[in-house]
Amino acid sequence: MTAQSRPDETIKPLLRALHGRAQAVPPVWLMRQAGRYLPEYRQVRAQARSFLDLCFSPDLAVEVTLQPIRRYGFDAAILFSDILVVAHALGQRVWFVEGEGPKLEPMRGPESVARLDPTSVLPRLEPVFETVRRLTRALPRETTLIGFAGAPWTVATYMVEGGGGHDFAAVKRFAYADPDGFGRLIDILVEATTRYLGAQIAAGAEVVQLFDSWAGVLPEAAFRRWVIDPTRAIVERVKRRYPGVPVIGFPRGAGMLYADYVRETSVDAVSLDTTVPMSLAGALQQRVAVQGNLDPQLVVVGGDAMRRGIATIADALRDGPFVFNLGHGIVPETPPEHVHELLRVLRGR
Amino acid sequence: MTAQSRPDETIKPLLRALHGRAQAVPPVWLMRQAGRYLPEYRQVRAQARSFLDLCFSPDLAVEVTLQPIRRYGFDAAILFSDILVVAHALGQRVWFVEGEGPKLEPMRGPESVARLDPTSVLPRLEPVFETVRRLTRALPRETTLIGFAGAPWTVATYMVEGGGGHDFAAVKRFAYADPDGFGRLIDILVEATTRYLGAQIAAGAEVVQLFDSWAGVLPEAAFRRWVIDPTRAIVERVKRRYPGVPVIGFPRGAGMLYADYVRETSVDAVSLDTTVPMSLAGALQQRVAVQGNLDPQLVVVGGDAMRRGIATIADALRDGPFVFNLGHGIVPETPPEHVHELLRVLRGR
Repeated sequence: MTAQSRPDETIKPLLRALHGRAQAVPPVWLMRQAGRYLPEYRQVRAQARSFLDLCFSPDLAVEVTLQPIRRYGFDAAILFSDILVVAHALGQRVWFVEGEGPKLEPMRGPESVARLDPTSVLPRLEPVFETVRRLTRALPRETTLIGFAGAPWTVATYMVEGGGGHDFAAVKRFAYADPDGFGRLIDILVEATTRYLGAQIAAGAEVVQLFDSWAGVLPEAAFRRWVIDPTRAIVERVKRRYPGVPVIGFPRGAGMLYADYVRETSVDAVSLDTTVPMSLAGALQQRVAVQGNLDPQLVVVGGDAMRRGIATIADALRDGPFVFNLGHGIVPETPPEHVHELLRVLRGR
Repeated sequence: MTAQSRPDETIKPLLRALHGRAQAVPPVWLMRQAGRYLPEYRQVRAQARSFLDLCFSPDLAVEVTLQPIRRYGFDAAILFSDILVVAHALGQRVWFVEGEGPKLEPMRGPESVARLDPTSVLPRLEPVFETVRRLTRALPRETTLIGFAGAPWTVATYMVEGGGGHDFAAVKRFAYADPDGFGRLIDILVEATTRYLGAQIAAGAEVVQLFDSWAGVLPEAAFRRWVIDPTRAIVERVKRRYPGVPVIGFPRGAGMLYADYVRETSVDAVSLDTTVPMSLAGALQQRVAVQGNLDPQLVVVGGDAMRRGIATIADALRDGPFVFNLGHGIVPETPPEHVHELLRVLRGR
């Protein structure tokens, strides 16, 4: 089903934007809209033994995915999961420490890469696909279901560094000193991610987003090789199999290289981090839909500062295909009432 | 003394570049060239009770500033100090934890700002000026002496967050929720930094660099207000008093906003982080000298990867005013021999 095959008003607002339409009121969802800032999320989280358990329990994962839809009526629900489930499914040990984020048994060198098992990815992630299937039945008719995965560079970064909050020393040294060996890790991730996104779409995801959270730490040549090339490979393969499903790319922090990313990866939309100026956003919008990019700290602060931030973005991007979102995930300290206010401001304009 | 007033060949190579000249062999220095990767630095460091003590002991600070000049013959020496000496001189408690970086008693709200004492800055930093005076006598004739300071946004970030390695939540919330109160902190830093750089120049610094390490976390409007405007205020005031002294700006991570920064701040040169593509570097070079931007991890790795990285940058920027440098500070794990190799590659081209 494409934008051309049915009357425009029956298409969900998010899909309309991703198919290139400007809309008077932009569709909106927020990265990490299901999460710790919501008391009802914290209740469900307390029922799971671990964060990965929450991701792999369809009952709980469906519930937390739906919570922000019930509370706020966002235009899209994003599957509740984590980009590191792919590392886990490949056979790496992954765990989450409350308040510290993900930890992984760090991979070093070609031997660790050789131990990864791509054939285990889809069977091990079956609970995620069950969550997606249930969500397709549970979501309101006008709400779009977004699936997602981490992009290979970012997932490889966690796999090599053994967690977040690092200086990228280990992953850069691996990639610079042994590009062929590192390339084998990236190739495995391209394969696993392509299958993973395909299975999410087969289960009912209507859009997929590729999160490349650490795209912004690489020099140009490395960005091309480890961000653009693997992303293009995934997007082309997903589109060959599922031509009507839009792909949103998020090369966070890519700066000047956002334009190359958009030109060279075949994404349908690009998610912008908080630092992207409206001049660049407008230029990108000539080519693809843009999504973003309010600073999450403005939603913590609320009030006039948040309202001005919303207006700046919505005014600059309203005449082209546009999805309102944050430039980064919503933070735990966000007062839930500020999200209501955000929606009132955005939809009441 | 300007580029026009004396025969070109008697001007030091670094100053020639900063005055707009292309050179067959670019001048070179490396951020953090005096530091933990050098065994002779670690010996001197062990003699000081604390890192701040090292900064405030002219005997020791002169010695570590000179070490990389003796070993490598860089075209510039940068005063050994830290951007947080200004916070210390304003009356905030600052200390350094080995392996963790700087810690500060975090400032919160207008009361902490009101307690800062700008009149104490120059007297408390007298040891730094003594170091500069001694360096002017100790340096080889062809070596340029660079002074520096942190830019107000970055110093304010440390002052409000209480250290590095943070998510910028506290400083952004202060700036967004109370821009007038935060503006008073920035104004104090503009004043203190202007005086501090002026005193370094009066003591003999021939160039000054403003480090804005956290410039890359701000949305456009905030970047303009907290990065561009304070930087312009400092540069204009320094230039009014010392018109011949070049100022290098380093808005690390500014992405697309590098162009606005260069256009609007009156800097003579801009230091580029590792992610700046050569297309942008070339465009900026039409307006100012550019400095950068090899990934420090390539100097750790060495070999072909480092040589290719050097060639990419030097080839792209050799036809305009250019200073070779890293895109970020050299890291402690760097083998000193790789720096020799870097210089051989760069100077032997």
